[in-house]
Amino acid sequence: MTDTSAKLTLLGLGAMGSALATAWLAADYDITVWNRTASRAEPLRTLGAQVADTAADAVAANDLVVACLLDDASVRSTLDGVDLTGKDLINLTTGTPGSGRELAACATARGARYVDGGIMAVPPMIGVPDSGAYVFYSGSAAAFEAHRDALAVGAGTKFVGEDPGFAALYDVALLSAMTGMFAGVSHAFALVRKENIDPREFAGLVSGWITAMSGYAHGIAEHLASGDYTTGVTSNLAMMVEGNATMLRTAHEQGVSPELLEPFMRLMRQRVDDGHGDEDTTGVIDLLLSRR
Amino acid sequence: MTDTSAKLTLLGLGAMGSALATAWLAADYDITVWNRTASRAEPLRTLGAQVADTAADAVAANDLVVACLLDDASVRSTLDGVDLTGKDLINLTTGTPGSGRELAACATARGARYVDGGIMAVPPMIGVPDSGAYVFYSGSAAAFEAHRDALAVGAGTKFVGEDPGFAALYDVALLSAMTGMFAGVSHAFALVRKENIDPREFAGLVSGWITAMSGYAHGIAEHLASGDYTTGVTSNLAMMVEGNATMLRTAHEQGVSPELLEPFMRLMRQRVDDGHGDEDTTGVIDLLLSRR
Ligand SMILES: NC(=O)c1ccc[n+]([C@@H]2O[C@H](COP(=O)([O-])OP(=O)(O)OC[C@H]3O[C@@H](n4cnc5c(N)ncnc54)[C@H](OP(=O)(O)O)[C@@H]3O)[C@@H](O)[C@H]2O)c1
Ligand SMILES: NC(=O)c1ccc[n+]([C@@H]2O[C@H](COP(=O)([O-])OP(=O)(O)OC[C@H]3O[C@@H](n4cnc5c(N)ncnc54)[C@H](OP(=O)(O)O)[C@@H]3O)[C@@H](O)[C@H]2O)c1
Repeated sequence: MTDTSAKLTLLGLGAMGSALATAWLAADYDITVWNRTASRAEPLRTLGAQVADTAADAVAANDLVVACLLDDASVRSTLDGVDLTGKDLINLTTGTPGSGRELAACATARGARYVDGGIMAVPPMIGVPDSGAYVFYSGSAAAFEAHRDALAVGAGTKFVGEDPGFAALYDVALLSAMTGMFAGVSHAFALVRKENIDPREFAGLVSGWITAMSGYAHGIAEHLASGDYTTGVTSNLAMMVEGNATMLRTAHEQGVSPELLEPFMRLMRQRVDDGHGDEDTTGVIDLLLSRR
Repeated sequence: MTDTSAKLTLLGLGAMGSALATAWLAADYDITVWNRTASRAEPLRTLGAQVADTAADAVAANDLVVACLLDDASVRSTLDGVDLTGKDLINLTTGTPGSGRELAACATARGARYVDGGIMAVPPMIGVPDSGAYVFYSGSAAAFEAHRDALAVGAGTKFVGEDPGFAALYDVALLSAMTGMFAGVSHAFALVRKENIDPREFAGLVSGWITAMSGYAHGIAEHLASGDYTTGVTSNLAMMVEGNATMLRTAHEQGVSPELLEPFMRLMRQRVDDGHGDEDTTGVIDLLLSRR
């Protein structure tokens, strides 16, 4: 490890920033920290961190500057008027692809190299070996490469391209997929809620099934790549629409609102009505992109 | 294996029935088959199946009778007037919990033991070792036990209770959870669709993330079992609602309709507004059950 990569500045000591700081200190990094509310820095001072009085002092202390603040507005206001010349700014604050691109343009104009990050973990996973925690990075490949070791301390790293919007895009895309899964799982639990069924045993079946069916994404990807949405389809849309009717009847019998499943079922039905009954659900993606 | 369990009748030779018949023949079972459209039985006759001319003849041939027809209406019409006395009827036709209970009552009144089944597989998985295919069974435990070996030939077996509606309930619940997951994954692909991102690489990230997050069901189950929806929560609803805003802004930037995610986000917001911001999403299940 070179001298450059064993020293860094961290702005933001919320739940995530504090977890990251702790991981760097445990790995013997020389870190300088700053937080708007100064008291949150005290536990880290005890662990060996340098504590800066201002964000400008913190940024001045090291070439590698990591920000983990609430949102992009707080990153902007924190860095307002701070000299960024020659700095490598790694922004781990969650944002949209557009805000990542804007921050990159702004930081670059002020003489910094910019890397955006999207953290795929909760704080208790940071610094824990094999926790599965990782961070998407995108933007300056040179800056990412220069600090690869430092960035790999708390969680795995996945560099997804030079577009500074991509880290947020991948991050948000995976969270969106997860949100749909959570909605489906909620509906499933609602269906069995009033029956004499142990939710803990049921959970094992649900998570096993979700895992077994997660390969669905690969089939979709093949169809998007080839442009032919019918190859290798074992359950086509026409059959799925029949299955949807059984799901809706079951929801009705069990007294469960169908509102979480209906929008997707409507789009499947629309594809069938448009003459695509022999495809799988890939065409729903096209509908989502044409409805604005 | 006893004599009883190596002989059976199968009604219905669609894609699924034919796959099951092939698996039983491959395992040296003596099977009698019937299909409404007689021509579909010919390939199985070649493989060694007895072909009955009528459903009544097929049912008369064996004590174990498996039905795999289109829907419960076709089961009813096929068995109309057929003597079921002393038969064990295993109905693998997909239905609702309610229709499973009705068929059970009807079959029992006609002197049969009834077991309902919900097949968690597509036909190409049937009879393939380690394919992960399995079938939920519920209803007469005595009938299930008597034919356990025969039923285990094409796919794994999971007996989920004496309520004849439970096989369909578990089946539909898992398919519903999967439908939500498919919706989320579709949204995720739509977000990256117009970017220079290889859908096949993206698919690996999505399926890995879905698998990693499938344990969500266990957290929900603990909360439902204890009645306390706040224990062990690392990302609470208030934080998730902030994240939802980022997901919706990203969808807007990428030109993707938010319709698949919005209903679940609305229910999360409602729980926060009702004062449950420190919980996870478990309370959404209660909302789904109170909206009718
Ligand atoms: N926690 C997670 O599970 C998780 C997971 C993935 C990604 N993330 C992302 O990581 C980032 C930090 O999350 P967190 O959990 O650490 O949040 P948090 O615990 O709420 O901490 C927020 C941090 O931002 C600071 N801050 C807020 N507004 C500010 C402003 N206007 N100017 C300067 N500083 C400001 C806060 O300072 P004060 O102490 O002065 O309030 C605090 O240090 C967020 O973008 C979040 O989306 C979090
Ligand atoms: N395929 C799958 O991926 C899958 C997965 C899980 C569960 N299942 C369930 O398994 C069952 C069978 O599915 P499948 O894929 O085999 O369907 P399929 O290929 O469409 O076959 C339907 C079968 O039902 C028969 N049938 C339809 N209407 C009938 C009526 N009124 N009277 C008598 N027979 C009638 C058909 O006979 P004809 O040949 O005369 O039309 C055919 O044998 C369904 O309940 C399905 O939900 C299927």
